[in-house]
Order: sequence, then C-alpha cells, then structure tokens
Amino acid sequence: MSSSTAQRIIHLGVFLDVSGHYASAWRHPSTQAGRFLDLSYYKQLAGLAEQGKLDMVFLSDRYGIPDVYGNRFDATVRSISSSSAKLDPVTLITAIAAITERIGIAATSSTSFTEPFLTARQFATIDHLSGGRAGWNVVTSTSDNEARNFSRDRLLDHEARYERAQEFIEAVTGLWDSWEDGALLLDKAGGVFADAAKIHYAHYQGNYFQVRGPLDVPRSPQGRPVIIQAGSSEAGRDFAARFAEVIFTAQPTLQSAQSFYADMKRRAAAKGRSPEQVKIMPGVMPIVAESEAEARKIEASLSELVDPLAGLALLSDQINYDLSVHPLDEPLPELQTVTGMQSRLQLVSKMLQTERLTLRELGRFYAGSRMHRKAVGSPEQVADFMEEWFTGGACDGFNLMFPIVPDSMEQFIRLVVPELQRRGLFRTEYTGRTLREHLGLPRP
Amino acid sequence: MSSSTAQRIIHLGVFLDVSGHYASAWRHPSTQAGRFLDLSYYKQLAGLAEQGKLDMVFLSDRYGIPDVYGNRFDATVRSISSSSAKLDPVTLITAIAAITERIGIAATSSTSFTEPFLTARQFATIDHLSGGRAGWNVVTSTSDNEARNFSRDRLLDHEARYERAQEFIEAVTGLWDSWEDGALLLDKAGGVFADAAKIHYAHYQGNYFQVRGPLDVPRSPQGRPVIIQAGSSEAGRDFAARFAEVIFTAQPTLQSAQSFYADMKRRAAAKGRSPEQVKIMPGVMPIVAESEAEARKIEASLSELVDPLAGLALLSDQINYDLSVHPLDEPLPELQTVTGMQSRLQLVSKMLQTERLTLRELGRFYAGSRMHRKAVGSPEQVADFMEEWFTGGACDGFNLMFPIVPDSMEQFIRLVVPELQRRGLFRTEYTGRTLREHLGLPRP
Repeated sequence: MSSSTAQRIIHLGVFLDVSGHYASAWRHPSTQAGRFLDLSYYKQLAGLAEQGKLDMVFLSDRYGIPDVYGNRFDATVRSISSSSAKLDPVTLITAIAAITERIGIAATSSTSFTEPFLTARQFATIDHLSGGRAGWNVVTSTSDNEARNFSRDRLLDHEARYERAQEFIEAVTGLWDSWEDGALLLDKAGGVFADAAKIHYAHYQGNYFQVRGPLDVPRSPQGRPVIIQAGSSEAGRDFAARFAEVIFTAQPTLQSAQSFYADMKRRAAAKGRSPEQVKIMPGVMPIVAESEAEARKIEASLSELVDPLAGLALLSDQINYDLSVHPLDEPLPELQTVTGMQSRLQLVSKMLQTERLTLRELGRFYAGSRMHRKAVGSPEQVADFMEEWFTGGACDGFNLMFPIVPDSMEQFIRLVVPELQRRGLFRTEYTGRTLREHLGLPRP
Repeated sequence: MSSSTAQRIIHLGVFLDVSGHYASAWRHPSTQAGRFLDLSYYKQLAGLAEQGKLDMVFLSDRYGIPDVYGNRFDATVRSISSSSAKLDPVTLITAIAAITERIGIAATSSTSFTEPFLTARQFATIDHLSGGRAGWNVVTSTSDNEARNFSRDRLLDHEARYERAQEFIEAVTGLWDSWEDGALLLDKAGGVFADAAKIHYAHYQGNYFQVRGPLDVPRSPQGRPVIIQAGSSEAGRDFAARFAEVIFTAQPTLQSAQSFYADMKRRAAAKGRSPEQVKIMPGVMPIVAESEAEARKIEASLSELVDPLAGLALLSDQINYDLSVHPLDEPLPELQTVTGMQSRLQLVSKMLQTERLTLRELGRFYAGSRMHRKAVGSPEQVADFMEEWFTGGACDGFNLMFPIVPDSMEQFIRLVVPELQRRGLFRTEYTGRTLREHLGLPRP
C-alpha cells in the first residue's frame, strides 16, 4: 500500500476532449460545447486534471474537417463537435503550459505536413516554457482529405509515410541534441554568450529531409520532449518500438491488450531499448458513478443522443474509406485494404465477426468509444478493471477518454483516483517536475 | 490636447528583444540575458508594455543560427545573444497571450518554410485564445542558411519568394474566411453543432499552393489577425501595399521616412485600399534618460561593449552575403546585387557614401540600431522627435527597439509615454479590446 516512488504506479493521461469523447457529448445538457474557444475553459479542465495528479493532458489532431463520408462535411459539422471545430493543438498546449504548474502537456503533430525544424523548435520551446512538461504525439496522418490542405491529392502510401516519419523524427532529435547541456555561458565580462564548441550542426541527410541545424533553441529541460506514438500496424509497431516512450493504443479486451503489451516490450528490447522505457497506455473510456446502475444510465443517455452517421463519418475518416456507398441497414461487407488507419479497420472487422451489426448500428456503436475499451460501473469496479489490466501485464497506465466533459472527469477524479491511491496504485502528490519524471522515463 | 478616440494617435509596438536591440546588450550589467527561456520574464516584459498601454509586442524570426559571416556561427554565438538562442516566436506569443489581458501580440512567420493551412490555424487559434489580439508579421526570409534547415540549398530568388508569399497569404485569408460569422449553432436539442451552409471550401489553386479547406477553426474575433509586413524593396512595397495593415520599415531620416510614407499610402490607394488602413511604423531605438547627457552616456557604454564582428555577422546574414571576405580595416567595396534583404544593403550603401567607415567601424555601427533611427535624449527630446515624425507625414507610429531591456523599456514607459499623453498624442487607457481596435483598423 506504500506509494513510494520505487513502486510501479499507473500512469494516467487525459485525452482532452472539449465536451467528451462520445461524438454526441456536446448535446448532453451538462456540457459547455460553446466554450471550446475560451482559454478559461482549458484552464478549468487542465486545472482539474492537475488537481487529480494525472500525468498529462493530451490533444489529438487531424488537419481539416473530415469529409470522407459521402464526400462532404455535412454529417461531421452537424454532429461531431470535436472534428468540426477546434483550436490548433500545439498552439493550445502552449497556452495550457502557461497557465498550469505540474501536469504534462502533449499534443499531436504530423510528420506528413510540416518540417522537422519547425516541430523541433516548437516542442523545445514548449518544453522550456513549461519547465520540462512537453510531449509530442507523432502521427503520420491517415486521410487524403488532410493531404488536400497541403497541396497534395493524396497521402503518401502507408510504408512511405512511415519512412518519412522515421526521417522526420531522426532530424528532430538531431536538432534537439545540437546544443550540448552547458553550451550557454552567459559570460558578460569575457563577452562570450555561448560556447561554439558545444553547439553542433545536425547535418541530417535523408531522402525526404536534409536539415543542417543547429537548432536556435538551447537544449530543453527534458533533453528531449517525450515521444508518444500510436501506430498499431506492423510499420507502426516497428516505428513505436524504435522511437516511442509512450504508446497509445486501442485495445478492446484484456487478452488483446496483454498480447500487444508483450509484443511491444519484446520489440523495444529487440531494438536495444529497456522495456521499462516504453510506457503502454491503452485508451479507456471510464463511465463511472456512485453505483453501476447509475453509470449504465449515463451510458444509455449518451447513446440516445448519438447520430449514427456521426460514427460512420468518424470511421470513414479514420480508415480513409467512404462508408456511405454501403446500405445503412445491412452488414458491412468485407473491405479491401484501406489506405488510412489499418489497425482500426482490423479491430472493427474482428468485432463484426462476433457481433452482427448493420452499418447503422455500427455507426451508433463507433460514435461512442471508437473501439477503445469502456469501463462502466462504480468507482470500485472501474478501479478493479484498471488494477486488473495494470497488474495483469496489459498496460503501464491509461489514456483516459472521458465520455462527458467536465462531468466524467470530475467524477473520475473525485471517485476513482482516491480509490487507486488507497490501493497504492497511483501517486498522492507529484514527486517530479517534468513529464519524464512523472512517467519514470530517463532524460536522454 | 484631448485624447478622444476620434483623434489620430501614435501607435506603438515593442520589438521584444530579450536583452535589448544592441547586439551587445546582453553584456550590459543591468540585463538578465539568462532569463530568455523563462516564461516569467516575458510576463514581466509584456506586463510592462501593457502597463504603458502600448499597442502590441512583436517578435521577429529567423530560422536557425546565422553563419553567413565566414561560413561559421562562431561570431554569432559568441556575441549575439538574440540570434543564437531564442524561443520559437509563434509559440512564445501564444504563451504571452495566455498571461496578458489587453496588449496586441504579433509574431513573424515565414511564407518560405511552412504551409498556409498551419499558419492560418496557428494565428486563428492565437486570435481566439487572446480575445482578438493576434498579428502576423509576414516575411519571405532572406538567408540561404535558413533554407538549409528546410531541405533546400538556397532560397527561391527574390521575385519567386514574393510570388510564393502572395499565394501563401491568399490561401491563408481564404481559410480564415471559410467559416462565416454565425456558422456555429450549438443547437443541442436539434442536434446541429454547426451550419454546413455557412462553412465553405477555400479551393485555393495557385502554382505553389493548392489548399482546399475549410479551416477547422471558426472565424476568429478579429475576422482575420492583423497582417504586418516589412518589405521595402520594389516587390516588397507592392506586396505590402496590397496586403499589409501595419508596415515596419527602417528609415534613418525624416526625409526618407516621409518619402516612404507617401509612397506606401499612394500605393495602397492605387490598390483600392483606404490609406488609413495601412499603418506605417518605422523602427526607432529610443535611448532616453532624465537628461540628454545621461542618455549619451548610456549610448556610449553600449557601443563600448560591441564586438564589431557581431555587427558584420548580423549584416552578412541579412543581406545573405559573406562580408568576411573583405579586409576589416578598409572601406567596403561596392557590392553586386545580393540575394538577401536588398533594401538593407541600399541603406548601408547610401550611408557609406557620406560616412567613410572601415568595415570594422561599419560592424560596430551596425550592431547598434541596424540602420534604424536612434532617438537619443531627454524625455522631451524623444517626444519631440516622435511628434515631428508623426505630425510631419513620416509615420503613424513606431516599432520601438529598446537598446537595453528591461531598463530602456521601463524608462520609456516612465518618462516618454506620459509626455506623449500630455501632448494628446497617445492613449491614457486602452479603449478597445482587439489589436484591430488598438490600431484603428476595421474588422474584415
């Protein structure tokens, strides 16, 4: 029951949805969907997460409004608040950094649409401004619709996206390392600001990127901001095993999570890394209330508000395939390989082998947790679930996807966090200053 | 002497140098050169500017450490703090937005190295988070050294850079306009988040950029963040006349400033714009103290600390030409056309026609105000200078380049601002909420 720092504790991130992860959450009477443009709202949410001593808040990204479904964005802007309108995630976490003290702050930035120099400089800056709390979720992006906002008709193919991503991250880390610790001298009398011998060109030479450096930002408090990744395909796993320090993943069952966990730790070791330096955090949607019955009631009320087309629009976007060509009241036929998120299609196909759903039913289901595991019940039940996965070799923590925000987040922090603390599974106070320290990751 | 809003007032921006605009400022005993990575320092500086009721703080940019001089960065990192090490400007103004209330916040972002979709989204986000205080200084970048951080050997040529810049800004404004005001419905009962009929594809088709849109950020408080530009070449002036709402410029004399002012107002009118919608703000370096003698003493003490190589490294970088090939103790020979900032070379050449300086002396001189006008003297003298330029058709305000920070800034706000207020030339309180309102610019 001790919560000494030596003991392994659950790591908790919050997927920072404005109204909640349910596509219909913005319609729930308790949510404040209109406040997504107000800094004060993010101060409230991040402050709540910080009060709960969570490891980090996290923002996903997607460059543009999804319009894969039916080749128009109408279903999206009608029903899915978070996909229609948002603030730029990297910009938003910068503002959040400025108004929080301890919690880690991570955002997504795609290797397909920007430049290593810019990304290296942005995240190094956020790491400085936050005192070492920055994390970068590396994605390769999955939708051709996004490519069309960047002067291209379509994305690179899946393999090329990962080749580009690998070069991108190598160039970025080269830039982060271009200033040695101690290069800043600030010698006023001698007139030497920085030691040229401790600043190095990166000279990165790849097929996609050639980046000379050095970066014009000194080495940041964490050395390198924490690298997060969520690829689950073969190429994605290989990439994550090599670079990721935190891995997000969608795992519907304990068994699938255990298998993924073992596979990723093994792969990381095969790359010469310590398995402890890769934290695996499946997404989970906690629907918690004082009693299980009450939690089930919340779940049902959210499902009622769902527009099935919203779920199909979300899924179409993620797999980069227009599901509107199939009839709504029949089962989904087997799909050819898609060009978007392949692992997501595999999860859906696997589920459809056992659950006979029409496309409409699939849409309604998908608009909920999007293939992430739900944990519905009393505080003890949700804590039991988390403890089982954590002690059962299925995860090092969770990426929390709250169905309704801020309500579900408040309930989780009020009801589940103390329960985890009582069990010695979660910190009662921050012991570190940086995100690396929160996560138990070494400074590179 | 009334300060009614109808009266024309001086607009004041602050070029937010960490230690000051003098290359040697970081060596001055009063500066805190080591605090450039701390958010608390920017809170102090921006808070000071806000207390002085200034229109905006402004951050320049340059992508990488200058190494044009001698093809190495040694002189730069030894002597020029601001060019060696900084925080990403767009990221930094986001953090400043989060911790200030009223002052405008503007940063530089280059059209040569990023994508319109990203820039549109960043600045729209900052505009939302700041309640309408964002400005974007559009630059085309001037150094091949920067290009080498972006997978290219050299910059596009001068004309092509401006063609690309024009497409870039057209694509960005198209994205900003892709959401009509009122597109957000937030109709919970009806289940309609946003009105698809009020959200439009941008469908931008250029030679450099094809950007479909729509942006995934609703229209921001200012409609569009304020566009700032500083091109002074023929192509630069044409671009500014078409797009800029604030123009920064280096004007060493009243006469040159008057001529530039008249030319830019005329050009704006020729593009069908109201000349009042283009605010011309030359850079000025105020060195102010209780008495002129004391101000001259400060100036001399700063010059003493200057490393002439720092000035030559700065100038080499700006004109994209390595001055180290010329002997230090001889005058600069006439240069062929350079590929960097052409207007800057012209200013230098013009000065050298009347002032016979060796290259070493030029370096020492240039490391000061970098061809911007200095205003050295008592509060009355500096206010006289500003009044003369402002009422004499030379400017609509100034971009203040303080030689030592925060000292010169404190002195200016304590001594000159009240003097300007007494003369009815400057606001005594913010009358607007947005940067556009501060500047007297309409919402597009």
